[in-house]
Amino acid sequence: MTARAVTRSPLPAWFLGPHAENRDVLERLALNVIRDYSGWRMDSHPGDPPGIPSEDRSTPEYRECVERLEAGLDTLMVELKRGVPAFSQRYKGHMLGEQTLAGQLGYFAGMLHNPNNISSEVSASTTKLEMVIAHDLARMIGYVADASWGQLTSGGTIANFEALWMARSTLYFPLAAAFAANELGVALNVELPDRSHVPLASLGLFDLLNIRTGPSLDLLQVLRESSAGPDLSASLEKHSLATAGYQAHAERIERRFGYRSRPAVVLVPATAHYSWEKIVRALGIGAQQLVFVPVDERCRMDPDGLWETVRSLSRERVAIIACVSVCGSTEESAVDRLDLLCEVRSRAERELGVTFHLHSDACYGGYAAAVTWDAAGRRKSAQQVRATSGINWPSDEWQKSMLALARTDSVSIDPHKLGFVPYPAGVLLVRDRRARDLVATDPPYLLPGNLSRTREDLIAGRFSFEGTRPGAAAASVWLSHRVIPLDEKGYGHLIERTVIGAHKLYRALKDADVSPAVIVTLPEPDLNIVCFFLHPGQMKSLAEINELNEVIYRDMSIREPSDLPAYIISRTRLRSPMYRGAVRPLLATLGSAVAEQWHDGEAGGLVVLRATVMDPFLARKDLAEVHVTGFVETLAAAARAHLAGRRCELSPVAGFEGRVA
Amino acid sequence: MTARAVTRSPLPAWFLGPHAENRDVLERLALNVIRDYSGWRMDSHPGDPPGIPSEDRSTPEYRECVERLEAGLDTLMVELKRGVPAFSQRYKGHMLGEQTLAGQLGYFAGMLHNPNNISSEVSASTTKLEMVIAHDLARMIGYVADASWGQLTSGGTIANFEALWMARSTLYFPLAAAFAANELGVALNVELPDRSHVPLASLGLFDLLNIRTGPSLDLLQVLRESSAGPDLSASLEKHSLATAGYQAHAERIERRFGYRSRPAVVLVPATAHYSWEKIVRALGIGAQQLVFVPVDERCRMDPDGLWETVRSLSRERVAIIACVSVCGSTEESAVDRLDLLCEVRSRAERELGVTFHLHSDACYGGYAAAVTWDAAGRRKSAQQVRATSGINWPSDEWQKSMLALARTDSVSIDPHKLGFVPYPAGVLLVRDRRARDLVATDPPYLLPGNLSRTREDLIAGRFSFEGTRPGAAAASVWLSHRVIPLDEKGYGHLIERTVIGAHKLYRALKDADVSPAVIVTLPEPDLNIVCFFLHPGQMKSLAEINELNEVIYRDMSIREPSDLPAYIISRTRLRSPMYRGAVRPLLATLGSAVAEQWHDGEAGGLVVLRATVMDPFLARKDLAEVHVTGFVETLAAAARAHLAGRRCELSPVAGFEGRVA
Repeated sequence: MTARAVTRSPLPAWFLGPHAENRDVLERLALNVIRDYSGWRMDSHPGDPPGIPSEDRSTPEYRECVERLEAGLDTLMVELKRGVPAFSQRYKGHMLGEQTLAGQLGYFAGMLHNPNNISSEVSASTTKLEMVIAHDLARMIGYVADASWGQLTSGGTIANFEALWMARSTLYFPLAAAFAANELGVALNVELPDRSHVPLASLGLFDLLNIRTGPSLDLLQVLRESSAGPDLSASLEKHSLATAGYQAHAERIERRFGYRSRPAVVLVPATAHYSWEKIVRALGIGAQQLVFVPVDERCRMDPDGLWETVRSLSRERVAIIACVSVCGSTEESAVDRLDLLCEVRSRAERELGVTFHLHSDACYGGYAAAVTWDAAGRRKSAQQVRATSGINWPSDEWQKSMLALARTDSVSIDPHKLGFVPYPAGVLLVRDRRARDLVATDPPYLLPGNLSRTREDLIAGRFSFEGTRPGAAAASVWLSHRVIPLDEKGYGHLIERTVIGAHKLYRALKDADVSPAVIVTLPEPDLNIVCFFLHPGQMKSLAEINELNEVIYRDMSIREPSDLPAYIISRTRLRSPMYRGAVRPLLATLGSAVAEQWHDGEAGGLVVLRATVMDPFLARKDLAEVHVTGFVETLAAAARAHLAGRRCELSPVAGFEGRVA
Repeated sequence: MTARAVTRSPLPAWFLGPHAENRDVLERLALNVIRDYSGWRMDSHPGDPPGIPSEDRSTPEYRECVERLEAGLDTLMVELKRGVPAFSQRYKGHMLGEQTLAGQLGYFAGMLHNPNNISSEVSASTTKLEMVIAHDLARMIGYVADASWGQLTSGGTIANFEALWMARSTLYFPLAAAFAANELGVALNVELPDRSHVPLASLGLFDLLNIRTGPSLDLLQVLRESSAGPDLSASLEKHSLATAGYQAHAERIERRFGYRSRPAVVLVPATAHYSWEKIVRALGIGAQQLVFVPVDERCRMDPDGLWETVRSLSRERVAIIACVSVCGSTEESAVDRLDLLCEVRSRAERELGVTFHLHSDACYGGYAAAVTWDAAGRRKSAQQVRATSGINWPSDEWQKSMLALARTDSVSIDPHKLGFVPYPAGVLLVRDRRARDLVATDPPYLLPGNLSRTREDLIAGRFSFEGTRPGAAAASVWLSHRVIPLDEKGYGHLIERTVIGAHKLYRALKDADVSPAVIVTLPEPDLNIVCFFLHPGQMKSLAEINELNEVIYRDMSIREPSDLPAYIISRTRLRSPMYRGAVRPLLATLGSAVAEQWHDGEAGGLVVLRATVMDPFLARKDLAEVHVTGFVETLAAAARAHLAGRRCELSPVAGFEGRVA
């Protein structure tokens, strides 16, 4: 055994550790938190009589209740240990990772105090921490922090929901402004996507639904600052989609323009999280208005596909509420070429006169933007990052994609994913802070105009769809960001380590001998999720290939908490036709019959195994030797066992056994 | 000082206590949790090499990082103490109370394990605990636990949102079924509100939108069990509002029936939480479809008002998505006469042939249903409850209202309010579990039919709008319910104590001498929120009355954490016209000029001061002597100071000073 080099980074202090190596730190500081919190209570009006006098704490009822609490807690602790060992280096399943010690302690402290970030009146401190977090993350993705705005949500679904709600409100705002201006005889100009300025009253319906976010919000600002006053406010409110609802709104459009507007759509790549379907259903947009843009072989939204989609929608005069790009897809950690998607939008504005809200669903990958910052607050080139990563990552293209986050209209990022803090912590960031006024529950036009900007920020409940939000989440993320900065020394380093580990695993899988089976990998991951499947040698049907991977998945997932497999993975399905671009090159290796089955939608798509590497320690040479090797051996053993002895489990397809090599 | 009787109930063991009297219990058990959790990590593959070897924990980088964590945590603890001392007996502001020790310890244990209750694959234990909680609460409100279903949400807003989403899906389902049946030539019968059975194909649009929840879901079940198969599934999906979206859906209706359907509405009382407005805006229903039903002098929805509203909507052929009743309004803790509202619905079904989804927003008051259960699982009469409360509460009517929760279609209850657990913990309960299938993201008709009911329950993400949900919340509520049962010995006792405290305060305010001012109270609260305002003697304008109460509020609220007032309250505004029924009797005492100003919507409504008594200890005689007296004295002193010396602050109204008595 050779001597291991000591880790010259603070990473060993960031987590409790796979074997609770830092348990002394957690214990000591958690105790500090409890004592500090108890001390606050003891110091508050110490002269008041006790709420729980000592004689009340020596009754049989008291003792029995404490015993009941102890017994219940014991049961709970036993139950919880039947859960997923996400801390383990052997867990490579879903997007469940470690939590930072700072995140755990911050949450615990916040939980005891239990503020509610609905308004600073009940969360004086944690509302301010929430603003700091939003500022941290806005800066990291390249937004101008003072012009943008952000808030915590319970997670990515709500952040995405709020983004789309805001996008829809911004899309329809110029229409409401046109109605109101017409009603009150106010003349206004507005900027078109080609940057020309025209009278609002001169625009047709489709043009009104193709005003860029900035000019749409300029319109709001001009109107708020105009002298038309309460009449205008009332008129704007009356004509908004939020007030009228879809049905009355559509009828009003028809009366004014003489024809019906086509339902507006939302564009997503095949890799979009399934919550986008929930969201368009709930918002009344309708699932059939969710338009899938093709993905390329790297599972990234295809810019040419986007262009074709936009052009075709433009021809049919269908407005686009938003285009959702993905930064770190939940299945493959694919990072869309956001820079190219921005170019498509610019081209659409120039050539077609149409535009759309560009949202990046960076719930998983957003924190990876930290690798692009050095400790002095300067952006690093991809080459500079590669010099520290020591692997062929990130590519120049990847870097451009991350830098393009600055050009989106909104971004969702989950601190409870690659921010490594406890649930629940999602974040919505909006580039133009004025957009939030369009979803405020008190219509902004009805607000007394004398609230300062900071004071407005403190009444977070006005802009949040959720009412109650735990201030503990703000405390948790805030402390984690203080200990682990959003640059190459902090989260950048942490995420880089996970990517290095993932690439080690990826290389090992590419080189592995699992004969008679063969491992087919998807392209090198953009972040840290490795996708692959096993081909069982000569067999040819898609169902049979899937079956092998399903049994391996069953072997390598948790069936009984008392009987954990050596390594734990997850699996996903790449479905036709949305995943065509990504699956086409894979199918090329499998023959035309399988390709045809996939294209025909047979067998529910292609089953793909998935190893999520959120473990930052795997990157270490000595640990990779143990766990990368162990992982591949476990996989090979599972595949061989099934191919050799357990054929009957493999497939319900008749004649199957005869065809095994 | 007389000897105090020892408290013969476990209540002293339920909380940390206003002066952290139970800090030894919290410390000891929190440490147990950490050690148990660390032990799990240590026991997991103990032979694996350490992720954080000891030599990595003695580097300068490591030490510096731990110091940074300590410093950050110190800062956080200082910041958090600038928050609201909700534990204090002197805090009577918003709905922020203590948290149970069980809730705190359960959350902490769950937080360390950090399961995600999206699917049992990542939360094997806490998904089951969530099902137990839902079962506990369903039973408490009188639902048949096996026929109903429930889940955790981040809070009341999301629970209410999901309830309305489900109500809308159920409302429009018979329409989709009629379209699909027509398309495929399937003949079906359906039950009308008057209990007659007719062919689905014979119904007009308005009748299709007036099928009760049960028969609507029977239709779903019949269709799922029919042999029509995938064609039917596809057709149902195509015709659902969720798929089509409002615009295409409305056009389809017009094509089929030859006329447009009027937008469906949502009925709420004036006391409804402001989140209902957010919800109808986001869902595409539209704020103008939110119809306010009058309230009576107790701030409860007026059953006659509901009947008139329903009759008038029925005449105009406007369908009702849901009627939202409130159990424990956030401002006044008013409990609607749900039993009478149920009767209105029955009458509407009989006499008008119309029906609606009845939802109880019991986010605040739901847990009070625990007082209606004895420890043997039998319902108690109101008289029996009064015998233990020792005050004139609850009334027979109150008891009937709580029992009527069993007759609703859905109920939202926040464990983080009167369940006294940390944020975030809301719960949605649905009486007919089949309704959840209509909002499942995989359309149920497309699901392989072989999932068992229990297995389906474990994939909670299908039915939850939120994706990620902290399993810690489930652990917290579960443990709190185990220690404090949902009956007269547990939560019933706890909430009864808060009501007793509130009534003591109410009585004291009614009797208080704050001359020259006069205290005007709202009627005795249904739960534990006491609302009142001060009338400054002879002054007559509404603005002047409001001004006095605003300055008292400012005196008795937190401006600087370092300078807390002796007692802390909050305030609200009763606005015209929604609050007319409640404000009319109050105005009668203030003269016709003020009444006219209120009716005209001047001064933003009537400002009312609000004392929320979530403190269970105030009910004790010795503590009431200190704090009820102290509260009234603080209030009187504030009023007198302002009336005597600080008149100029009181009002911007010209000539004001001259009119002070």
